[in-house]
Amino acid sequence: MEKSLVPMLLLLVAVSYSLAKDTTTKSDRKDTKETKETHPKLPQTLSRGWGDQLIWTQTYEEALYKARTSHKPIMIIHHLDECPHSQALKKVFAEHKEIQKLAAKFILLNLVHETIDKHLSPDGQYVPRILFVDPSLTVRADITGRYSNRLYAYEPTDISLLFSNMQKAMNFLKTEL
Amino acid sequence: MEKSLVPMLLLLVAVSYSLAKDTTTKSDRKDTKETKETHPKLPQTLSRGWGDQLIWTQTYEEALYKARTSHKPIMIIHHLDECPHSQALKKVFAEHKEIQKLAAKFILLNLVHETIDKHLSPDGQYVPRILFVDPSLTVRADITGRYSNRLYAYEPTDISLLFSNMQKAMNFLKTEL
Repeated sequence: MEKSLVPMLLLLVAVSYSLAKDTTTKSDRKDTKETKETHPKLPQTLSRGWGDQLIWTQTYEEALYKARTSHKPIMIIHHLDECPHSQALKKVFAEHKEIQKLAAKFILLNLVHETIDKHLSPDGQYVPRILFVDPSLTVRADITGRYSNRLYAYEPTDISLLFSNMQKAMNFLKTEL
Repeated sequence: MEKSLVPMLLLLVAVSYSLAKDTTTKSDRKDTKETKETHPKLPQTLSRGWGDQLIWTQTYEEALYKARTSHKPIMIIHHLDECPHSQALKKVFAEHKEIQKLAAKFILLNLVHETIDKHLSPDGQYVPRILFVDPSLTVRADITGRYSNRLYAYEPTDISLLFSNMQKAMNFLKTEL
């Protein structure tokens, strides 16, 4: 009896440790990020599920270069895999046919890590956060969502506003004309 | 006889046009880049074929953050899809089991567009070009290949040198200790 108890105890310890680890991971956003990013779904895609049939740029430098040379506006989506708000927005974004069609006219970039460019966080760094950049490389701080404390955030229910903001971004700044 | 000649001529014209188009694409690097990037294989992957089972970072900022926090060195591969030297190196890199195993110990980044950081082009911008960055965020300009005019270039035949350079990059700078 005593002999068989040892493996049982070891098992219990192992399970407890595993659960404790899970709890820590879930309660601490930073830890979650590290854990998740260590084991992403392979191979990772540039689209990250925001539109697999769209063409995505990899870096902000690449997006700026392409915006300048192709005279298209940039749409930048800051998000996180472990953020439920980002995931919910991603779902409606990817399933919205008109948005997907209009998105093809943009230089697209989705980022899970902030850039060093402060212009991309006019009112702070949070996710989800969507910003547009004019082909003149001016950040369109004037194109905002409906939350005064997080001007560039969108909830899934704001998808129509996002769509009309994408249309607005297609009207370039007058300095460009 | 004359009737059957017409389709033949049309075919010849079509073939010639197609070849001319190919030649133009191949001779003009910039055109090639634009053409290829407009129609990439979808969905695009972060690995771009350099190791689908490895974890790749998306941006240099992300790589720097992860190097600092995980105390791992960064390996940055600058390459282009339309560069045959890059493609040849990628093939041996992806098929080299020891390299793939060792690569997993690095924060990995492959880029088809240059960053604004001049430290990543100590002797100019060219591809393929491989640089290592210490966890102290110092670019290891001391880790070079065998070409004096392009210090960070590697040919497929240099794969063993690249492997030993990866091992060298794993010996961090003393400032880190």
